[in-house]
Amino acid sequence: MFRVTACGESYGKALMIICDGVPPGIELSNESIQEEMDKRRPGTSPIDSPRLETDKVDIVAGIRDGFTTGAPVGLIIYNVDRQDIHVEQYRQVKDLVRPGHAEYTFFVKYGKFADWCGAGRASGRESACRVAGGAVARKILEKEGIQVIAYTKELMDIKMRDDLSFEEKQGKRHNNDIRCPDEDAAEKMFARCLEIKEEGDTAGGIIEIIARGVPAGLGEPVFDKLEADLAKALMSIGAVKGVEIGAGFGLTKMKGSQSNDIPYLEDGKVRFKTNRCGGFLGGISNGEDLVLRIAVKPTATISIDQQTVNMKEMKEATLGAITRRDPTICARINPVAEAMTCITILDHLMMFRGYKNVAKIDNPWDADK
Amino acid sequence: MFRVTACGESYGKALMIICDGVPPGIELSNESIQEEMDKRRPGTSPIDSPRLETDKVDIVAGIRDGFTTGAPVGLIIYNVDRQDIHVEQYRQVKDLVRPGHAEYTFFVKYGKFADWCGAGRASGRESACRVAGGAVARKILEKEGIQVIAYTKELMDIKMRDDLSFEEKQGKRHNNDIRCPDEDAAEKMFARCLEIKEEGDTAGGIIEIIARGVPAGLGEPVFDKLEADLAKALMSIGAVKGVEIGAGFGLTKMKGSQSNDIPYLEDGKVRFKTNRCGGFLGGISNGEDLVLRIAVKPTATISIDQQTVNMKEMKEATLGAITRRDPTICARINPVAEAMTCITILDHLMMFRGYKNVAKIDNPWDADK
Amino acid sequence: MFRVTACGESYGKALMIICDGVPPGIELSNESIQEEMDKRRPGTSPIDSPRLETDKVDIVAGIRDGFTTGAPVGLIIYNVDRQDIHVEQYRQVKDLVRPGHAEYTFFVKYGKFADWCGAGRASGRESACRVAGGAVARKILEKEGIQVIAYTKELMDIKMRDDLSFEEKQGKRHNNDIRCPDEDAAEKMFARCLEIKEEGDTAGGIIEIIARGVPAGLGEPVFDKLEADLAKALMSIGAVKGVEIGAGFGLTKMKGSQSNDIPYLEDGKVRFKTNRCGGFLGGISNGEDLVLRIAVKPTATISIDQQTVNMKEMKEATLGAITRRDPTICARINPVAEAMTCITILDHLMMFRGYKNVAKIDNPWDADK
Amino acid sequence: MFRVTACGESYGKALMIICDGVPPGIELSNESIQEEMDKRRPGTSPIDSPRLETDKVDIVAGIRDGFTTGAPVGLIIYNVDRQDIHVEQYRQVKDLVRPGHAEYTFFVKYGKFADWCGAGRASGRESACRVAGGAVARKILEKEGIQVIAYTKELMDIKMRDDLSFEEKQGKRHNNDIRCPDEDAAEKMFARCLEIKEEGDTAGGIIEIIARGVPAGLGEPVFDKLEADLAKALMSIGAVKGVEIGAGFGLTKMKGSQSNDIPYLEDGKVRFKTNRCGGFLGGISNGEDLVLRIAVKPTATISIDQQTVNMKEMKEATLGAITRRDPTICARINPVAEAMTCITILDHLMMFRGYKNVAKIDNPWDADK
Repeated sequence: MFRVTACGESYGKALMIICDGVPPGIELSNESIQEEMDKRRPGTSPIDSPRLETDKVDIVAGIRDGFTTGAPVGLIIYNVDRQDIHVEQYRQVKDLVRPGHAEYTFFVKYGKFADWCGAGRASGRESACRVAGGAVARKILEKEGIQVIAYTKELMDIKMRDDLSFEEKQGKRHNNDIRCPDEDAAEKMFARCLEIKEEGDTAGGIIEIIARGVPAGLGEPVFDKLEADLAKALMSIGAVKGVEIGAGFGLTKMKGSQSNDIPYLEDGKVRFKTNRCGGFLGGISNGEDLVLRIAVKPTATISIDQQTVNMKEMKEATLGAITRRDPTICARINPVAEAMTCITILDHLMMFRGYKNVAKIDNPWDADK
Repeated sequence: MFRVTACGESYGKALMIICDGVPPGIELSNESIQEEMDKRRPGTSPIDSPRLETDKVDIVAGIRDGFTTGAPVGLIIYNVDRQDIHVEQYRQVKDLVRPGHAEYTFFVKYGKFADWCGAGRASGRESACRVAGGAVARKILEKEGIQVIAYTKELMDIKMRDDLSFEEKQGKRHNNDIRCPDEDAAEKMFARCLEIKEEGDTAGGIIEIIARGVPAGLGEPVFDKLEADLAKALMSIGAVKGVEIGAGFGLTKMKGSQSNDIPYLEDGKVRFKTNRCGGFLGGISNGEDLVLRIAVKPTATISIDQQTVNMKEMKEATLGAITRRDPTICARINPVAEAMTCITILDHLMMFRGYKNVAKIDNPWDADK
Repeated sequence: MFRVTACGESYGKALMIICDGVPPGIELSNESIQEEMDKRRPGTSPIDSPRLETDKVDIVAGIRDGFTTGAPVGLIIYNVDRQDIHVEQYRQVKDLVRPGHAEYTFFVKYGKFADWCGAGRASGRESACRVAGGAVARKILEKEGIQVIAYTKELMDIKMRDDLSFEEKQGKRHNNDIRCPDEDAAEKMFARCLEIKEEGDTAGGIIEIIARGVPAGLGEPVFDKLEADLAKALMSIGAVKGVEIGAGFGLTKMKGSQSNDIPYLEDGKVRFKTNRCGGFLGGISNGEDLVLRIAVKPTATISIDQQTVNMKEMKEATLGAITRRDPTICARINPVAEAMTCITILDHLMMFRGYKNVAKIDNPWDADK
Repeated sequence: MFRVTACGESYGKALMIICDGVPPGIELSNESIQEEMDKRRPGTSPIDSPRLETDKVDIVAGIRDGFTTGAPVGLIIYNVDRQDIHVEQYRQVKDLVRPGHAEYTFFVKYGKFADWCGAGRASGRESACRVAGGAVARKILEKEGIQVIAYTKELMDIKMRDDLSFEEKQGKRHNNDIRCPDEDAAEKMFARCLEIKEEGDTAGGIIEIIARGVPAGLGEPVFDKLEADLAKALMSIGAVKGVEIGAGFGLTKMKGSQSNDIPYLEDGKVRFKTNRCGGFLGGISNGEDLVLRIAVKPTATISIDQQTVNMKEMKEATLGAITRRDPTICARINPVAEAMTCITILDHLMMFRGYKNVAKIDNPWDADK
C-alpha cells in the first residue's frame, strides 16, 4: 500500500522516485527531504567516494501549498558529476569484469546493451532513490510516533559499546564520518578505514537498525511476515550479505529457556523482560523495539590490480587499480538501511490501519461518520 | 509467476495448497510428493514432536493421466492427530501467552477470535504446505538440472566438517535424525539434543542451503534481487531469525581484496575462483552454487515452568511445563528450507525464461514457429 | 488485501478455494456458504446443464468454534458427476476444437498436456470457486451494510421492466429459473430459452449488478480505479464479452449537460439527482448505488453439427451435436457476477479502512487504544 | 513483468513515468517518444482543450548510446501551461463540486488536502503519462510484429463505415482532428462537435482498438485473462464507461450457432472464419486480431451554468459556465487507448515468452546455450 518505484543509473541523466500510497496532509518540502539525502551524499569525507554530487532533490508531483494531496509524490535528482570525463574513463574498461561487482551478471542478463558506465543501474547511486523514498515514509511514520535509526555497530574487528541508550544512539549517530554513536569506537573505526584505504583496500562492517514505537500487530502470519519483508528490503541493498533479527545467529547457541522473552505486565500493558526476538513474535511486531542487523561486505572496487576476464575477447586480463572509490560504504549505508526500514514498516502499517486511518481524514463527508 | 498459496492450522481439519504457474507435462503423483512430505513428517524420531500425522497428500487438481496440465495444482492434507484429546488440552491454557510463541501478537492482531489451538496458523504445521508446494517446484527444477539441498550445519556448539563435497552432502543428508551429512557430527548433535531434551529444554542451530545448476541471470537488479527474495522466503519460516549468503557475516571481517571472487575462464565459460558471494553478483545469480545459511532458534515450547501473562484476566501467571514438543526443529526445518528455495528460484526462472520456455511446449500450433 | 485463489477442473477430483485476508469474528458455516452455492448449482432447471453436482462445500481451514479466526479460509468441493462415463466421452473428441471454446488456445498455450476433459480449467465449473469465495466476502460486506445483487435484465430480445425498486429486485431475483425479478419478462425469457433449446441452440443476455451501501471513497484515482477492477473481475468470468457502468454505452449518445449527475444536499449529505455514472466519479465510489451490466454470450456448446479442426491430425472435421449442455448460462452467471463484485469491493474496502478496522477488533491489547 | 508507474497532476510541476521491465537493445530517443506524445497533445484543434502544453518528453534513465540497457526507463515531462494565471482561477472555485468530475470523491478520500487545481491527479493530464509509457511498449511490440491502432468509430449519432481494411484504418486514423479513418464520417463528426461546442456542451463517442499480430497463447485462463486485463486497462482511462470485445453486447442477441467462430485450416495454421469473439478464446489470444471498443462519455466540463454543492459551506450553489475545456475527448483518447493496449499486451507477452526471449539476448555467456 506504500510503494517506492525508482529509476536511474550511475551516469544517467537523473534519478527519479515515485512514492505511491502517500496519505494527504503530510508537510513536505525539498528541504525536508534534502536533510535525509545529505546523510548519504558522497564526497563529504575521506572514507567515502570522491564523486561529486549535490543530490539536490526536487518534488515535482503530489504536493499543493506545501502539503501532500494523496496523489503519488514524484521526486527527481539530476546527476551532476562530470559525465564528460567519467563516461569515457569507464568506456575504456567496459569489457573487463570488475571482481565483486554486478557486471558479469548484467552481461549475462542484458547482453551487450547492459550499461557499463560506473556500474550503471547496479551502482550504489541507486540508493539515493531509496533514501528519498524513505524520507517521505519517515515523515508519515513520525506522525505515528515511530522512529527508525541505524548506526555502524562493527567495522572490521572494532565493535561499539553495548550500553548506549536509544536516545544516545539516535542523537549521536551522525556525529562522525563513520556514523557510530560510540565516539571512541568511531575514532578507531575511522583510523582503521584510513589505514585500509592506504593499502588500496576496503572495509566491511555491521549496521544495526532499531525501530521504536512500532505498534504490535504489523505483519502477516505466514509468508508475508514483517520480519521477512524487512529481511528482503535490507538484503536488496547492494553489499548486504546477511540479515539477523534480535539475537539472530546468537540464538542458535541458546536453549529455549534462554531465548524465550518472558512477558509481564507494566501499567496494564504486556511487555517483555528481554528482546531476544528483536520485536517479532510469529513474524508480527510485538510492540517492543524492532532490532535488526545487516552484514555489509567491503566495497568491491579496490585500488589494487586484480585478475579478471575481458568479456568481449573472452580472455583473461588484469584490471588495474581504481583510485576513485569508497574505502567503506558502512557509513553511507546507514541512511539507506533506515530508509528501507521506514518504507517497509509504513507499508504494513497502512495495511493494518487502512489508508483513511493513517491519513487521519476527518471531514463532514466521511462516510463512516 | 510460480506462486504457492496455502491455508490450514495446527488443529484445523486440513491443510490445502494451490500452486499457480505450474507448466504442463510434469510427471506428478501423490507418491512423488509424499516422498518430500515424509522428510518433514513429525513423530519419527526422539528429537522431534510426538504429534501423530500421516501427512498423506492428495492431488485434487491440475493433473490428467499423471501429468500436469498447466492448470494450478491443488493439494490437500487432512490432519489426523487426535483432535478430541488435544483441542481440549489447548482450550485449558488458551488465555496464557506461551513465551517465544505467536500467541500474544495473534491476540493483538485478531483479538479474541484468534485460533488458540496448538498455535493455530502460527504452528509449524503450516510448513507442511511449504514442503508440498516445494515438491512441485522441485520436479520442475529437476528438469532444468537444478538441485537444492539443505542440511544441519551447526547444532548449538557442534559444527559439521567443512570438506564434504556437494554429492556427499546431497547423498547423506537424510541418513540420520538430525539431517547432518557429517556422520560424526550428527552423532554428537543427536546426543546433545537428547541431553537438552532431558533438561526439558530445546536446541537451536544453523542450516545451510545449496542450490546447484542455477543458470546465471536470475534476479532483478534492485529491489527484487534473487538473494533478497530468498532472504524473505527463508526468513518467513517460523523460528528463523537470520539469513546469510556466501561468507555472510564473515565478510564483514574481510577486506575487499579478500572478499572479491576472482573470475577466470574454464572451457570458454566464466567461472569464479572462490564463492564468497554465495553465487550472487548484484543480487543476480552468477552460475555458481547458491549458498545460504539460516539461524534457527531453539523451539519455544519447553518442558519447564515459565512466567507469563493471562490475557483474559490481564494478570501474571505461570505456564506449566509442556511435554508434547519438538526438542529441536533443526532437523525438520531442512526440507522446509529446501522447499522455499525451490519455490523462489522457480519463480525467477519463469520470469527469466518465460512460461512457454520452461514448459518447453513444442507443437505444430506454436505461434512462434 | 482480500484475495481468492482457486483451482480445479471440470473433471478433476475437487475444487479448492483459499480466501486470504478474512477478518476474524465472522460467523461462517458450511450451510451459510452452501446457500450461495446452491444458487449456481447445475442440474436444477430445464434451461441449465444436466450435469449432476451436489456442490457440497466443506470449510477445512480458518474457523474455530464457528467463527473466522483471521487465518485464511480454505474450502473444498469434491466433484461427484460420473467421471467413469464422462471422461471417456470427452476422450473420444479430445482432438477436435469446440468452436467458441477455449480448447484451441489451451492447445497453443499448454500443448498436448492441456486437459481436454469437459473444457478442463476453462469449464464454467471453475465459477463454483468464485461463488464460494464470494460467499465469504459477502458475509463480511453484510456486516458493513453492503448488499450486492445481480439479475437477468435482458435475454435475447426480451427486456425486463425498468421500474422495479432495489428491494423488489433483491427479493424476487431468485424466484424463477432465469433469475429475472420481473415475473412477466421471466416467463417470456424462459419460454424463449426452451424454444432455442429445442432448436439445439443457445441464448445470450445481459446481467445487471447493483451494489448498495458502498461507502464513498473506494478505489484508486488512476490505474486501479474501483470501476476498472470491477471491469476486470467481471470480464474474467467465462462468456462475458462486455462491461458497462451506469448509463454505459448510452452515454456516448448524450451531451455533457445530459450525462452529468447533479449533486445536491440531503440531510446534510451530498447526493446526486441521477446516477448515470453508475456510482463512480473519477473511478472512486461516490456513495450512490454501483450499477454495472455485463454482456453474456450464448453458450458455445450447441446440439448442432459444426465444422471444426482436428488438432492432432491437423485436418478439418465435423464436431457432432452435443446434447449435454447449458441452453443458457444467463441464469447461473448471476451468482458468479455477485461473487466477483463482492470480492472486488471488499478488497478495496480493506485497503481504505484497514484490516483492523474492517475486523473491528476492540480489545484491551489494542495498541491504538 | 512490464509495468508503468506514473505521477503528476494537472498543475503540478511535472509528470514522471517509470517503465519497469524494458528489455535491452530497443532503440529509443526523445524524438521517437515525442511522436506518440504529439498525437495526444492538447491545443491543436478547435475541438480540444485550449490548454498550452508542449508535452516535451525527456528520457532521463534506462538508455546508453541510444539503446535501452535493461534498466527501467525514466521519462519526465514538465508542465508549461501558465500556472500563474490558472492556479488562481481554480482556487476561486475550489470548494465547488464540478458535476461529472472527481472532486467530490477526492474530497471524501483525501479530505481538505486534495488537490483542487484543474482536477489535480484526476485530470486527463495524467493520460500523457500513459501515452509516454505506451510509446516505450509499442517500440518493443513492433520488434515482435505487433501493431496496435485505435480510431473514433462513433461520435454521438454518427458512425464510420464498416468496410475499411486494417491498413486503411491504420494509415488514415491521424488524418483529421477527430481521428476517424473514414473521411466522410470524420467531416460530419467534426461539424457535429463544433455545433455542440457552440451550445456550450460536449460530445461522447465510441473508440475501437485493434491489435494485429498478437501471438496465440497470451493470457491466463481464469482470473487474469488477457481480455480481463485489457478491460481493466481501458476502463481505467478517465471518461471510459464501457468496454466490449469482438461483437460485445451484440452477442447477447445472437444464438450460439451464430456467435461461434468456426475454425479452419489455412496454410497449415488454424484460423477462424469470423472474429465475433474479438480474438480471445477462454480469455487467451487466439492469433486473430484483438478487437475492443470503449464507450467515452461526453466531457464533464461544460460552458453552461450547473447546480452544484459548495463543499466547504455545505450548501447548494451554482457553478458558472467554464469556457476553457475540451468539446470532446474522443479524438485525444485514441492514443491513450492504444497506449494502454500496448502496455497490457506487452506485459502478457513477457510472461509468456520470458524476459530473455523478448529481449532476444544472444551472447556467448548465455547459460542456455
